[in-house]
Amino acid sequence: MVSYRHIRPYLSEVERAMRTQLRREDERTYGMLPSFLSRGGKRIRPALTMLCCGAVGGYYTDAVEPSAILELFHNFTLVHDDIEDGAEFRRGEPALHVAHGIPIALNSGDALYTLLWKDLVNLNMEPSRLVKLQKLYAESFKRVVEGQGIELYWIKEGKFDISEKEYYEMIEGKTSALTGLSCELGAFLGNADKDLKKSLREYGELLGTAFQIQDDVLNVTGDFKTYKKEIGGDIREGKRTIMVVHCLKNASKADKKKLVSTLSSDTKTKDDIQAVIELFRKHGSIEHAQAKARLLAEEAKEHLEGLSPSKDKDTLLELGDYVVSRKS
Amino acid sequence: MVSYRHIRPYLSEVERAMRTQLRREDERTYGMLPSFLSRGGKRIRPALTMLCCGAVGGYYTDAVEPSAILELFHNFTLVHDDIEDGAEFRRGEPALHVAHGIPIALNSGDALYTLLWKDLVNLNMEPSRLVKLQKLYAESFKRVVEGQGIELYWIKEGKFDISEKEYYEMIEGKTSALTGLSCELGAFLGNADKDLKKSLREYGELLGTAFQIQDDVLNVTGDFKTYKKEIGGDIREGKRTIMVVHCLKNASKADKKKLVSTLSSDTKTKDDIQAVIELFRKHGSIEHAQAKARLLAEEAKEHLEGLSPSKDKDTLLELGDYVVSRKS
Repeated sequence: MVSYRHIRPYLSEVERAMRTQLRREDERTYGMLPSFLSRGGKRIRPALTMLCCGAVGGYYTDAVEPSAILELFHNFTLVHDDIEDGAEFRRGEPALHVAHGIPIALNSGDALYTLLWKDLVNLNMEPSRLVKLQKLYAESFKRVVEGQGIELYWIKEGKFDISEKEYYEMIEGKTSALTGLSCELGAFLGNADKDLKKSLREYGELLGTAFQIQDDVLNVTGDFKTYKKEIGGDIREGKRTIMVVHCLKNASKADKKKLVSTLSSDTKTKDDIQAVIELFRKHGSIEHAQAKARLLAEEAKEHLEGLSPSKDKDTLLELGDYVVSRKS
Repeated sequence: MVSYRHIRPYLSEVERAMRTQLRREDERTYGMLPSFLSRGGKRIRPALTMLCCGAVGGYYTDAVEPSAILELFHNFTLVHDDIEDGAEFRRGEPALHVAHGIPIALNSGDALYTLLWKDLVNLNMEPSRLVKLQKLYAESFKRVVEGQGIELYWIKEGKFDISEKEYYEMIEGKTSALTGLSCELGAFLGNADKDLKKSLREYGELLGTAFQIQDDVLNVTGDFKTYKKEIGGDIREGKRTIMVVHCLKNASKADKKKLVSTLSSDTKTKDDIQAVIELFRKHGSIEHAQAKARLLAEEAKEHLEGLSPSKDKDTLLELGDYVVSRKS
């Protein structure tokens, strides 16, 4: 894990901002959310906002509320995605809909999303600046739900002829849009110039893509104790990961058929899942994914060149290495 | 049905605004939404915004986009509520999650919600005025999800000791918050003074409450062909309607027990549902609900007294009568 030592107090403020607010709300609707947030998570998005804000010469304090909003959005998507994906675990504990049933989990997600928009409308900021900020959020949020929409569409339609380009379009929505937003927000709040805002956005997008590919990899190679998600869960859910796309492109006809039929099946045994992982190994799909992730992370770091030297810049560079070497 | 003749072209513009936009979006995520919107609906909320805007001397055109946003929100809640309630029909056709599965219906709802916020952020309006407008939406949206949260909580907890006051708190969130918003938006867009904005908000809230009670009544007394929802559906879903609250307060111990056990049961036959309706009749719960609805509608109309005479005012008065006499 990257050390956030110099921004830690501000990240703690983000935590406080999120949970204090939720605890003030009606227990009947928001009751399950404070403990859900307490399950942790890497808080990589608030850290990115903070670091980018600092790296362009801004004040960390200006990033506290905006990054709390961003992290609330991320958590909202987790609640709904877990329902949509039929995921059983989240951060080592039962997913919210598993613990509380779909109706209440779904509505709690909506409540969280509504609350963060209320925050976003009430930020204490000059109105024309606030509206500019809101547009950044809205554009990225839209890409996130559309990324999820693409993935669900593929699963529903039983679509497997997916190019790497299409795969990237999907994860650039699901993951990169939000890490890109995190960085651009930081730059915006620190009053960076246009070029710097653009560079940091690109850094964040590429970092997110690398992060997601590493997540695909960990999902099949990780250890439940550190990864805290179901190992092989993506395979059970029939997800089109970069390994699936690569394997389908490179495997023999027989192996392709086996892969598609297992991923499409509604009932997968542990052995079925293991057999898919073996196919990935056989065709070098895991190595391919890891190489791609490393490449993207290096590319991301290049976008930091315009920044003056600082502890923030160093940490952003470290994050570039971390996202592809992480085990959890 | 109330005649909206003098505002009909503007209501058509609202329809166009909603559907044109949705058709421009990615089919994979938004594909099911244009036809869902085409199923119709009373469009009472856009009409309220239009009429209130006109009634205070504003321009209908200024209300087109804001009321499209409002109607999109209403439709978003229908998609998610139907999942949460396990409802089978919506506007005479299968609910979206029945037709397309929960994952895709859920995400389409999120996409719709995200899109309307994007619209709300991009409205062409002076920023400080826009932020004021956004605050009105955010506050009301929050009440809507909280109303739904209360209802789901009651069902999950098996709670039946509900006072009329608690019942009103719930429907004032679920329904009145949005009709109140519709009216206040119209007044805001028409630059009404503070008192007039407040009166129209109250009119809208009371009208919504009356509307909802009438909906509870129609759900047990209506005709599927005109009502277009499952008759007795509320009973099947175990909903705490005003009739349930009244009946539990006034019935004998044995009847109470019967009512609670039927509503709590996961498997209800048509006869079970009919038996509950009979209990409502026996204890005067339907008449009680109808009387309440009429009272609230009269009260609503009183809040229009500050308006100068106009076609808009006449239509708002008519709406007060319509909501409690409607059959669909």
